Amino acid sequence: MSTYIPPIRDMRFVLNELAGFQSIAQLPGYEESTPDLVEAIMDEAGKFAAEVLAPLNMQGDLQGCQCKDGVVTTADGFRDAYQLFVETGWNALPCDVAYGGQGQPTVLTAAVHEMWKSANLAFMLCPMLTLGAIEALRHHASEEIKNIYLPNMVEGKWTGTMNLTEPQAGSDLSQIRSKAVPQADGTYLITGTKIFITWGEHDMAENIVHLVLARLPDAPAGVKGISLFVVPKFLVNSDGSLGARNDLICASIEHKMGIHGSATAVMAYGEKVGATGYLVGEANKGLGYMFTMMNHARLNVGLEGVALAERAYQHALAYARERVQSVPAGDKSGVAKTIIHHADVRRMLMDMKSRTEAMRALLYWTAAQMDHANNNPDAAIRQSAQATVDFMIPVVKGWCTESSIEIASIGIQIHGGVGFIEETGASQYLRDARITTIYEGTTGIQGNDLIGRKLAKEKIGAGATAKALQQQIRVCVEELSKDKNLSIIAQQLGVALSDMETATEWMLENYDSNPQAAHAGAVSYLLLTGIVTGGWQMARAAQIAQRQIDAGSQDTFLQAKLATARYFAAHQLPKTMGYCSAITEGSDAVLSLDESLF
Amino acid sequence: MSTYIPPIRDMRFVLNELAGFQSIAQLPGYEESTPDLVEAIMDEAGKFAAEVLAPLNMQGDLQGCQCKDGVVTTADGFRDAYQLFVETGWNALPCDVAYGGQGQPTVLTAAVHEMWKSANLAFMLCPMLTLGAIEALRHHASEEIKNIYLPNMVEGKWTGTMNLTEPQAGSDLSQIRSKAVPQADGTYLITGTKIFITWGEHDMAENIVHLVLARLPDAPAGVKGISLFVVPKFLVNSDGSLGARNDLICASIEHKMGIHGSATAVMAYGEKVGATGYLVGEANKGLGYMFTMMNHARLNVGLEGVALAERAYQHALAYARERVQSVPAGDKSGVAKTIIHHADVRRMLMDMKSRTEAMRALLYWTAAQMDHANNNPDAAIRQSAQATVDFMIPVVKGWCTESSIEIASIGIQIHGGVGFIEETGASQYLRDARITTIYEGTTGIQGNDLIGRKLAKEKIGAGATAKALQQQIRVCVEELSKDKNLSIIAQQLGVALSDMETATEWMLENYDSNPQAAHAGAVSYLLLTGIVTGGWQMARAAQIAQRQIDAGSQDTFLQAKLATARYFAAHQLPKTMGYCSAITEGSDAVLSLDESLF
Repeated sequence: MSTYIPPIRDMRFVLNELAGFQSIAQLPGYEESTPDLVEAIMDEAGKFAAEVLAPLNMQGDLQGCQCKDGVVTTADGFRDAYQLFVETGWNALPCDVAYGGQGQPTVLTAAVHEMWKSANLAFMLCPMLTLGAIEALRHHASEEIKNIYLPNMVEGKWTGTMNLTEPQAGSDLSQIRSKAVPQADGTYLITGTKIFITWGEHDMAENIVHLVLARLPDAPAGVKGISLFVVPKFLVNSDGSLGARNDLICASIEHKMGIHGSATAVMAYGEKVGATGYLVGEANKGLGYMFTMMNHARLNVGLEGVALAERAYQHALAYARERVQSVPAGDKSGVAKTIIHHADVRRMLMDMKSRTEAMRALLYWTAAQMDHANNNPDAAIRQSAQATVDFMIPVVKGWCTESSIEIASIGIQIHGGVGFIEETGASQYLRDARITTIYEGTTGIQGNDLIGRKLAKEKIGAGATAKALQQQIRVCVEELSKDKNLSIIAQQLGVALSDMETATEWMLENYDSNPQAAHAGAVSYLLLTGIVTGGWQMARAAQIAQRQIDAGSQDTFLQAKLATARYFAAHQLPKTMGYCSAITEGSDAVLSLDESLF
Repeated sequence: MSTYIPPIRDMRFVLNELAGFQSIAQLPGYEESTPDLVEAIMDEAGKFAAEVLAPLNMQGDLQGCQCKDGVVTTADGFRDAYQLFVETGWNALPCDVAYGGQGQPTVLTAAVHEMWKSANLAFMLCPMLTLGAIEALRHHASEEIKNIYLPNMVEGKWTGTMNLTEPQAGSDLSQIRSKAVPQADGTYLITGTKIFITWGEHDMAENIVHLVLARLPDAPAGVKGISLFVVPKFLVNSDGSLGARNDLICASIEHKMGIHGSATAVMAYGEKVGATGYLVGEANKGLGYMFTMMNHARLNVGLEGVALAERAYQHALAYARERVQSVPAGDKSGVAKTIIHHADVRRMLMDMKSRTEAMRALLYWTAAQMDHANNNPDAAIRQSAQATVDFMIPVVKGWCTESSIEIASIGIQIHGGVGFIEETGASQYLRDARITTIYEGTTGIQGNDLIGRKLAKEKIGAGATAKALQQQIRVCVEELSKDKNLSIIAQQLGVALSDMETATEWMLENYDSNPQAAHAGAVSYLLLTGIVTGGWQMARAAQIAQRQIDAGSQDTFLQAKLATARYFAAHQLPKTMGYCSAITEGSDAVLSLDESLF
């Protein structure tokens, strides 16, 4: 059985030293996030992760979900774990206090959710979808709808889903065909088929609140004719009790490469008479409503990347400490050692560890900017934080998930032959990770969003946020270069930053004049930016660690942080050269081949 | 149903233009490999791949093998396909004519096997193991053993296995504990448990010839006390008919991440009285015998990487040509297009295509060197070719397999959400590919072999072969730089070559004085060398294509080759900068962290 140990020391370091949690806790609305409370939340959430969720992870993978006649049965233990999750009040952690939530900051929620996602990603997709649905309703639904649905959803008694995708409408939601016909009583009859609906049907909660994108009969074509509806599995009586079963059913569930513990449903709406739905907000504005949730949703998927990377690392590390094989090169003892003593295994472990730390640091730092963007009393700070968030979200989503696939694959490699055996558990992390670069917008979509709306078409000025970030990183480089212990990191970060600057300039120059060329480099630009900004966070971490060491701290965690920062600088930052070259010199090579010659 | 189209045009180009097949066909022993015969073999082998093996690939994945009471049942269709394979004479293609083989060159066999492995890797592991066992016996067994076993094995009527690994002896075979006790009649009684035995038990052939590593009672400890035995499933009577069942059984088969169609067996020898085995060659020399097969075995696993990359590419390409989604950036029509028109999808397809071509070119070129090393009448050429082969084998094995994982993963990405659904078939290639960097020596083992025995400890002089290769590549750079159509490739190859030269020098300087530091960079050096030598083959291909175009050829294949060569130069070659930096600047960062602080 694979154990999971919450990496609370690193989480605390990132929260306090890099993400500035103290200043978050002083923002209006977060006054109750006192150090004591935060400590208690982290500890208890960690226990829940290690003791309740982690032991079910492999069971979910092996057993998966079963669907029979529209009824989905989850893997053994999931139902009880979910009950406990709700009873403990965990679902409500980040939610609005007005509906029974605890109103904790985004950045703290990120740390807590990272633990739960490391422990059992498939399970955590259910609350994640519920929280997304809660946010959509909270921002856009009528008071009546909010009062009916939010308290039970915040508690977790009812779960939520997002119904966007249809067979012909994946990345391109303009192609949505599901229909909503207005009824005399103000409700709508919904018909249509939705696919890839995460936790679309299950046995863990008494009701499921589906948020469904559909078109009104007179809706304009394309993205401006899509409306958002609440379509509950069971209708809700005026006294709040559950009423009749709505005309919607889970037609089937998918056989997936990973996240087997979560049912991915094909949902059929209105096969008999039409499913009763309630319009959220105004007609034809549904896609916009969904997009207001996008930053949170994409941050959360980026977090899945961090979580899987951490779990894969822990799994591989445990094996590397235990497995004895061969005498390491240069070891004169002649005695076989545990494989962690072999240089290449060590390289792989350092790679997993340092990249995971960099991803965590970048993600929490971005989450902290979201808290400032939402709650800082200073409008200028809110605006600047929001611009940073908008720029960083595609980077965090794309880079953390792409990296998690590589890291989970390295985890298998460290195991050698047994890594390929399912009972070992290492392969599940790769199979689970493989979806994260796809859902909530593929890496290609993130790249296009980044170089377009977030860079070349940025409303506050083309490239303004990228350049501001680059300036911040340049300052960091200059500071670090003054400390002889850190000057090598400074040098490597400086070179990588120059690559980012070059690539940014190239993008700004070419986006309008040569859009295909720019888009050919979009993903490279995203990954380059992830490495540089992640490397920046690691450089900041090294600076803080060095300062604390210089002040006399004996905490070995700080030594380890210096080592992972140096590794990241020496092994990850130099990759920017390849990306920069591919962006600035490689677009013709992407575009020149005639389609017929592929 | 996924179709497979043998890429015969590219194979022919690589065979004839890059691997110099004409000169191979003139070597003693290969005189019958006339152009007509080669053409016929390629065509028929391609049909067998497309029509017989490819349609069974997903079935093997879904159904897998079943093991009950030591009897293994293969997936529907596998047994019949194997019968047809044997009846057609395919198994004998590369084998010695003295035992009924066709004696075709290694490089031609590589092309043919690539098709079959693309079509159905799990199936092809069975003949691949048989061929390995045939080679081991042919080189080292007595005439008596050869006469008993080889004709049936060459025909494919009997299959072969390699039994090396034990639970405590994976990468470190010195730990082997299986025992062989001499009997009065000259046979041996074998006892022990072997794991990860590919096709160790199955229902496709009437007998299975196990080659087993075990220790004699008086054997020295370590690698110099291991002997090799033939241990048939059924003993063979003096008239060649099958006799009693030997005391060996398949204890179980593994649940693996991929290659489900092939049974990976735990083999128990001698649980009753001891399994009867026959010593191959001399006692205590078994590991050496196995190592004489190593170059072929590792070439074949590298070939699996090429084959899976090709199949994943074809699968993704078919989807990208068919799936309509969104209006591409810069497209003024406003009409949604197939996704191959989107720049990032095109980038991914070019990446898959160009890397697969580079891998194929490098692998066939290396295989051709093996033919020269074995059959060239000129001793100096044989020796030089063998040195090249020895250097290139770990590169081909490590780089092609590591690349195949990335390429198969990109294949999933191109599919978007449906790529994660098992019925789509794209995930199988990634799951199958995931073992290739592990078996026959992990990438770490390949890296250590490369920087050690093949570079710093090279018998003909430290670094001699690497430097000779670098010199050849430098000449190619100089030639290409004279052609304005190719000068950009020349420039990019030149920069990458300089990185290889720098890394080679660093390795030679540090291997003895700082072995852990050298080994920390071993895999980076391997991947760097793969990119540079693969890029060199693509540069050679571009040069030849340009020459034929200049001479008036209208063959669009040549245009495509120029495009993939340019892509490889612009997108893959610049990665050497990161690897070179990691090797020369990054070893401290790998090694500095105390073990307890991971």
